[in-house]
Parts: sequence; structure tokens; C-alpha cells
Amino acid sequence: MNDDDQTTLDATLASAAAAAASLRDVHPAIRADGLRAVAAELEAEAPALLELAERETGLTRPRVTAELARTAVQLRLFADVAQAGAYMDARIDDPDPNFVLGTRPALRRCLVPLGVVLNFAASNFPFAFSVAGGDTAAALAAGNAVVVKAHEGHPMLARATASITRGALHRAGLPEGTLSIIEGREAGVSALEDPRVDAASFTGSTAGGLHLAAVAAGRPRPIPFFGELGSVNPVFVTPARARLPLDDLAAGYMASVSGSAGQLCTKPGFLFIPRGTDIARAISALPPVAEHRLLTAAIASGYRTRRDILRTVPGARSVLEGSVTENAGHLWATPTILMTDLSTLIERRDTLLDEAFGPLSIVVEYDVNDASRLAQVAAELFPGNLTGSIHIARDDDESLVRELHSTLGRVSGRVIVNGWPTGVVVTPAMHHGGPFPSTTVDATSVGTAAIHRFLRAVAHQDTPDWMLPPALQDANPWGIPRSYSHAGESIGWGSGGPA
Amino acid sequence: MNDDDQTTLDATLASAAAAAASLRDVHPAIRADGLRAVAAELEAEAPALLELAERETGLTRPRVTAELARTAVQLRLFADVAQAGAYMDARIDDPDPNFVLGTRPALRRCLVPLGVVLNFAASNFPFAFSVAGGDTAAALAAGNAVVVKAHEGHPMLARATASITRGALHRAGLPEGTLSIIEGREAGVSALEDPRVDAASFTGSTAGGLHLAAVAAGRPRPIPFFGELGSVNPVFVTPARARLPLDDLAAGYMASVSGSAGQLCTKPGFLFIPRGTDIARAISALPPVAEHRLLTAAIASGYRTRRDILRTVPGARSVLEGSVTENAGHLWATPTILMTDLSTLIERRDTLLDEAFGPLSIVVEYDVNDASRLAQVAAELFPGNLTGSIHIARDDDESLVRELHSTLGRVSGRVIVNGWPTGVVVTPAMHHGGPFPSTTVDATSVGTAAIHRFLRAVAHQDTPDWMLPPALQDANPWGIPRSYSHAGESIGWGSGGPA
Repeated sequence: MNDDDQTTLDATLASAAAAAASLRDVHPAIRADGLRAVAAELEAEAPALLELAERETGLTRPRVTAELARTAVQLRLFADVAQAGAYMDARIDDPDPNFVLGTRPALRRCLVPLGVVLNFAASNFPFAFSVAGGDTAAALAAGNAVVVKAHEGHPMLARATASITRGALHRAGLPEGTLSIIEGREAGVSALEDPRVDAASFTGSTAGGLHLAAVAAGRPRPIPFFGELGSVNPVFVTPARARLPLDDLAAGYMASVSGSAGQLCTKPGFLFIPRGTDIARAISALPPVAEHRLLTAAIASGYRTRRDILRTVPGARSVLEGSVTENAGHLWATPTILMTDLSTLIERRDTLLDEAFGPLSIVVEYDVNDASRLAQVAAELFPGNLTGSIHIARDDDESLVRELHSTLGRVSGRVIVNGWPTGVVVTPAMHHGGPFPSTTVDATSVGTAAIHRFLRAVAHQDTPDWMLPPALQDANPWGIPRSYSHAGESIGWGSGGPA
Repeated sequence: MNDDDQTTLDATLASAAAAAASLRDVHPAIRADGLRAVAAELEAEAPALLELAERETGLTRPRVTAELARTAVQLRLFADVAQAGAYMDARIDDPDPNFVLGTRPALRRCLVPLGVVLNFAASNFPFAFSVAGGDTAAALAAGNAVVVKAHEGHPMLARATASITRGALHRAGLPEGTLSIIEGREAGVSALEDPRVDAASFTGSTAGGLHLAAVAAGRPRPIPFFGELGSVNPVFVTPARARLPLDDLAAGYMASVSGSAGQLCTKPGFLFIPRGTDIARAISALPPVAEHRLLTAAIASGYRTRRDILRTVPGARSVLEGSVTENAGHLWATPTILMTDLSTLIERRDTLLDEAFGPLSIVVEYDVNDASRLAQVAAELFPGNLTGSIHIARDDDESLVRELHSTLGRVSGRVIVNGWPTGVVVTPAMHHGGPFPSTTVDATSVGTAAIHRFLRAVAHQDTPDWMLPPALQDANPWGIPRSYSHAGESIGWGSGGPA
């Protein structure tokens, strides 16, 4: 970075740190109002934002429209979470002269914001995982200031969103510096190294995420780095399911592979199905999928290279050839479906298993006699994924299904039955995370539980009421739920024994 | 390690992994029974255990007696936590055809055990942070198998405790391999590198902890490493408090510094007090503290070296000379209290600020006109501690107290008012953790919240009831509390706007 850029970054981080200091004491209802105001103002500016999003990302109008709606819902959901305050997990231990181990002091504990959260925006969700997306909503709901490293794939949309978001937050009474954006990889790394930053979140490639995770861990004061990296989301079709008609299955598979040109972290990269089914015919019989622009030059070139490699692997053949064509400075693609068998997959795992980010997926045929090996295959070949899916039918071998399903629950964060992994709903029970390397820390970045990434606990011992944070004061001025341990409750924990 | 040791370690880890696989489905009430049985059997064997503990560690009989009682209480507390099941944070989203963003699938999410937890035992709590201590209790309560790397400071006690614990767990119906111990540093590192281990906890020195943290992070599959490292626990006495009689303050300080020969992670390493108070006299007037054996040869030698360095720092003088003497192969110590001033502390921070593990503490005099700088001192010199304390009085400058107290809440995990940091109670509201480097991940290792370190979330989408884990089945066979999102509740999250 040149001196000017460094000065700008420094001012941004100073402003974020100052905002974080005053946000700690802001009533959660004010934070909630801010989030709701952002939602409303984004919706009010939708025509211009959608136009920008479509132009900069190549995503379709229906897709970005739905994504903006999701983003607004997400902001309102986190507003509710902030205001309800249960996320603070406030706990109050009354002082207890009869505590089983001697006098117990007055202890009060709650979760507090970390300070400044640096959020690396993703390319593939210009609203939902970008400036005002889920990570930002969760971090703001928790009471942090947020600095977003804008993605270079949609700079104008990022700036427009930031401007709207900052304005809405400011009008809602939140401090200057509550949200800001920075641009450029160098600024992103520099911010990640800065002592004023307390945590970071990231959605993107495995290589990029691991690099940034190492930066976060290598600081004099390491900070939590919540990276969502690659995932190939295997789907397993059981023998009994494969004996039923395959048309719906093929259609669901293709929709999940080709939606948003496959540029989704939950795109099914592998479909396991018994040899001898007519899946190739069922896929080929589907109506052709229209060409879709790829998000960025880097993604397009990565996809083309990866596709070329996969198409020449001995033992892999094309079911759908697909296309990658250049037009007006962009790459456009139609889905490519390859087919191979389990032994080739195992033999050539080093080549075949990496994520192909784009509309490509691999059908893997297994011998029906090998069905009992599928759980082991899932454990060994797919040890860390966001999702795992299983398509079952009434006539299945129950123990096979149980074992495979239970294995998928160990190696992935969300297990889907008779459905597809794309289309991540924003709800309390969502988990969008998984064992390494799908995430660097197995925590969710979607759904209300995502707020827990951006909090830490503080306990206050024997503290006069006026010195306590509002969440822990006797009068409970924030009106949050709190759990109590009353004096005398510990009697049963002791024993009459010699100790 | 030689081949035999490697074979033994391999068998231990294989057994732990097998236990972890079956523990996942064990009813929490059985796990709770197991924990309670361990508590009862440890109490039943108290005479022999206490004898061993006293002999191997040099801790006094009253101290190890209290610690064993605490350990039993801790096991029973975690038994209650396991059985109640609230820790699973079970969440059920009903399917919702009217969800604001389109049809919502059925989603059910709960926290599940990580698998095998490796717990590096501490030297200074031969019961409470050792084989059947808090980390073990929390990890078992969460449903994990536990491998404890025994501390070489109390090998016979570790073996005896392991034998009792294994027997109790086995008789309670828990699988072979639910708890095991390994011995030796090499075995510990080897286990930490082993793919069958899913998380680790550690209580010990900063250097040792950082080394192990790097091993955990450097694995092909990095795992969470919950290290509790060093802490110097600064205590600040305000000007108004310093004007009141100091006898109680001096007595409390000395008790906190010298208890267990200062070999506690919460020992106050620094006491800030205005220049001109009679604290030196008040300390000198206290009855002398008896000699106390130091825990291990390594700790003793580290303490002697550190004390020698500190005593020769220009600008530091002795208030209490203290002693370090050799007797029957052990080092014995009485408390050493040094005194310096704030400017010397700042100037010689590289030498003075490191933890002195043992009965040594430094009184730091500040100019009463510098009182308003104390918050900044706390932030800059003590950025990551388990605790921070403040002694106040009625006549204090309120803004000074507020600022210092609030700063201590940012740089430490527990803030104590008019009390001392040692004596960590095991309760729901305890937080025993803090910003780096006091812990590698700011999570508590004491109190019921400690269970959250050893869990991960899994979401189940559109899953038939019979395939769900018990915690999420319709009939709720484990009888745990669950939160529900009912269909139709999302209506308010949408908008009438253009999106």
C-alpha cells in the first residue's frame, strides 16, 4: 500500500475502534433498530442495488432479488436476537455462605462483544455474504464494530451498500465507525495484522482462507479467524432409492449443481449411485441449462483449468459436456457432469477430490455390493464438509442407512435426507459450518447461532451494582433473560464422605 | 518413544476412539451416573489419595483435602449439567410452507461431542486440573472419551486416580476406553498429532502451551487447543482505598500471594498502590508465612531463576526478602515481595512483566496524580489475563473507577472488586479464561460453561424421526429442553418493499 492508502486504513481502524468502545454500552434495542433500519433502507434502494449486483456479478435478477430479500430478513432476524438478549447467556450466582465448598462470592457473567470484527466479503453472495450480509449482521448484533474488506468482484455494489448501511446505522443512533469498508487485498491483510482488530470472518477459497488464518494466528496477539473454506458436499444415493424412478433425482441434482452456475459453497460436487442405474440417461434427458456468467475473472479461470484437468482424468467420462465460452470479456458456462467409478475416485483422489467451483459435478458409480463401504468412503474421502446428503427409500437396508447417515453427521455440519444441500435457510436451527477444512473453526456463519462467534465472556465478582454492565445489574435495565444460581442450591453436590 | 511405548499409545488411542464412537449414543443420565460414581469413589479412597498427593506435590493436607472436595463437587455439578441437557442447545425449526423466503425445510440442530479429547494435566492442582479434574469432567459430561496426559509431578497419584476413575465409569456402564492416561512428554505430543484426537486442553506454562498449540494447529487436520497459559493478575488499589487502614489489604494480598506457595494461575503478581502509603510496613508487620515446598524440580528451578533476576532489577527493592532453600531433594520457599514504581515498571517491562510462578509478587507504587493513567497502564501492560482486581472505597473518583474497571473487563476474564483472584469457585457464572495469552482460546476451563469447549453442532434437514439422534427425536427420549421455531413466525421479518 502507498502512504495514502495506509493513512486511510489507519483512520478507518481508529474510527472502528472508537465505535467499538462506545458500542459496548449501547442498549441492544438501539442496535436492533440499526439493523432493522439497514434492512429497510436496502429494500428501499433495491432497484439500484439489484442493477449493480446483476451487472457486477453476472448473477441473474431473480437470484440477486431473492438474495437481497434474504439479507433483509437476516438483518431483522439478528435484530430480534440482539434485542431479546438471550445470546448474552447472563448468569447470576448469588453469594452463598452455605456453599458446599465454603463461602461463595457474588458472581455475574455475561457475553460481551469482542470489539472490532474484520469481515472478508465473498464473491458469490454480493448481498448475503458481503457488506451487510450475515457475518456483518451477526457481529453488529453482538455489539461489535465491523470493518468489511469488500470483494473486488463487486466494488460498486459494495460501496453503495456500505453507504446505505452507514447512513442507516448513523440515523439509528449508532456511532460513526460502526461499519466501514476497506478495499484491496493488501489493505485486508494489513487490517488483519492490526492490533485494533479483534476477530475476523471469511468466506472464500481454501487457499485464501488458510493464508489469512495463518496471518491471524501469527500475530503477536492471535485472534479468532472464522473461515468458511471449500466444501464438496457429497450426495449418496442408496441402492433402494436407485431402483426407483430417477427423473426427479436427476432434476434435483442438476438444479443444485447449476444454480448460480454452481458457484455456491454447498454445491453437490459428487453424487454416488449404484452402477447400472440410468442416471446418465436421466441427466441427459433434462432440458438444457442456459449459459451463466461466472463471477470473476479469477473464478472463471480457476474453473476452466479445473474442468480441463478433470475431463482428462483416465477413467472419467462426460455425461454432459458443458461449455465454457468467452463473451464480452466474461466467461460463460453451462454445466459439465462427469462420471467415474469408486475405484477410480479412490485411486485418483489427489486429482479428483478438490472442489471445482462452478457448474461441474462428478457422478461416482459404486458396485451395489460395495454399498456397505459407503460410510467408510464418506469418512475417508470427505472428512470435512459443510454438508452431506443421503437419498433413501423404504426398502433400504436400515443398518446401511444408519451407518452412512451417522458418518455424515461426523464429517459434515449439516446432513440432508432426500434433498439437496444448496438453499441454506436463515433460521435458528441452521448450521453452516463443518469439520476442517470446510471451516477453520467449526462454527456456523448462517442462522442465529452465528452470533456466538463474535462474543467473549467476562465474570464480575463481588461488584457493586453501579459498576456492573447493564446486562448484569439488579434492575436488569436491558430486560434480558438471565439464569440464577440461588444460595443453598449446592448442598446436594457435597458428600458425607471423608473429604 | 520406543516401539513398546508407541504400541501402548496406539492401543490407548484406539480404545479411546472406539469409546467415543459408542459414547455418542449413551443416554446422558448414564454419563451423569458415571461422573457421580467417580466422585463417590474418589471420596471413598480419599485417605490414600490425599497421602499420595501430599507426598508427590508438597501441597499441604488441608489444601489437597479441599481440592479433592472441590473435584468431587465439580464432577457432580457436571453430572447435573449432562443430565439436564440444556448444554446441547437443541433447536427445532418446524417446516414452514409460509416462510418469508419460501418453503422452509424441517431443520433440527444440537451440539454433539467432538470425539476424543486429550487433556494435559497441570502440576499445581493434582486433583482439580488433573486426571479427574475439570477438563475431564467437562469433556466426559459432553459425551467425549478422554485421554489424560498425566503430569510427571504426581505420577502415582495420576495412576491411582485413573484406576479409580476407570473402574467407576466402567461399573456405571460406560465403555472401556472412556478414560485413559498416558505418560511422558513425547507420548503427549505424539497423541496431540494423532488423527484420532479431536481436541485438546492444557493448563500450564506459556512456553509449553504455545508449543503444543502450534502442534495442534500444524496437523493436517488442525484441532481446537484450549490452553490456559500464564497470567499475572494485576490488582489496583485506588487512592481513596489507600487512605483507609491497610492491614486487611496487606493480609489479603499476602494470603493470595502465598497460598499454595503462589503456585496458582490466579496469584496476584502485581499490586498497584499510591506512593506514600504504608503498605511495606503493613506487609512486614504480618506474621511470617511458613516455608512451603515447591511442586516440581522444574518449577522450583524456574522460580529461583526468576526471583534472582527480579531481585537485581535496578529500581526494585525487597519488602520481604523471602527464602528459597533446599531440603531433602526439594526446594522450599517463603514469600518474596518486591517493590518498584510505575516508571521503572514501564521502563523495564521486558524483564518485570513475565509471570513468576511461585510466592513472589511486586508492589508497584504510582504517583497519586497518575491515578487517571491506571486504565491505560492496565490496557498496555496487562492485555491478556485471567483476572484483574480493583480495591475501591467510598471516596473514589467515580470516573476513575469506572474507566479502570471497564478496562479490566476488556483485558481479563474475571474482574474482582475488593477481593482477591485466588480461590476460583466452580459455579455456573465462573469464567476462568481471558484474552491471549492467558488462554489460547478465550473460553472458560472452570464452571459449567467449560462444557462448551468440547462440543460441535450438527444440523439435520428433513430427516425421518428414526434417523435423528435422540436429542432431536419427536418423543424427546432424553427429556432435554429444546427451543422451537414454529411455522408462520417469520412473517414479520419480510417487508412490503420492492425486494
